[in-house]
Amino acid sequence: MNTANQSYDPNNIFARILRKEIPCKTVYECDHVLAFHDINPIAPVHVLVIPKGPYVSLTDLSARGSDAELAALLRAVGIIARHLGLDETGYRFLANNGADAHQEVPHLHIHLFGGRALGPMLSRKEPA
Amino acid sequence: MNTANQSYDPNNIFARILRKEIPCKTVYECDHVLAFHDINPIAPVHVLVIPKGPYVSLTDLSARGSDAELAALLRAVGIIARHLGLDETGYRFLANNGADAHQEVPHLHIHLFGGRALGPMLSRKEPA
Repeated sequence: MNTANQSYDPNNIFARILRKEIPCKTVYECDHVLAFHDINPIAPVHVLVIPKGPYVSLTDLSARGSDAELAALLRAVGIIARHLGLDETGYRFLANNGADAHQEVPHLHIHLFGGRALGPMLSRKEPA
Repeated sequence: MNTANQSYDPNNIFARILRKEIPCKTVYECDHVLAFHDINPIAPVHVLVIPKGPYVSLTDLSARGSDAELAALLRAVGIIARHLGLDETGYRFLANNGADAHQEVPHLHIHLFGGRALGPMLSRKEPA
């Protein structure tokens, strides 16, 4: 998915979760952020942390978002990690933006992973 | 490396880069953030984005940092991605915190990857 210059699609699944049209297992919520368990977790802890505003990608949030929105999003990841006890064992957070990163939903989302050893942070070579 | 409750080590390599005791190839700098090319890149673009303040991990920054510091750090990643042309092709950013994520330097650092297809975001299983 090429997200550059893409206008926000108000019917993406995270927009629908934010409108409560689709349920989620909420982990954390504040004025600017919602976090919930991924429905297809690939680690014992796999939480998605999203801005409530309509941002396709980090470049979009970075260009249009307020300091309060940006700070709340990043702070939430740390708050959730501590709340879930991951500060003791460790955790990784990441976000995929655009085609090369295989972004699947066109609403910025940060993955928070923990609960096991997480392996290499990136394949060293392009996938075959 | 278990970074929970770890006090900041002022002699870690990123602290020394911030003090200009060790050179780096700077990509971006502002009051709160320094970004530079990783010396052992694992993708065509591999930039490290770090807060200038003495934060071991995101949980540490999240607990002690100001909104200005948090916002500047996350915004910088988006600014750099756009500056390097990654918004067109895509990019991934991530940070490893603590032992399970194999954090190597005890100063919070966000990796920015781009320039090729980046493969799966996480190994589905714990490494053997």
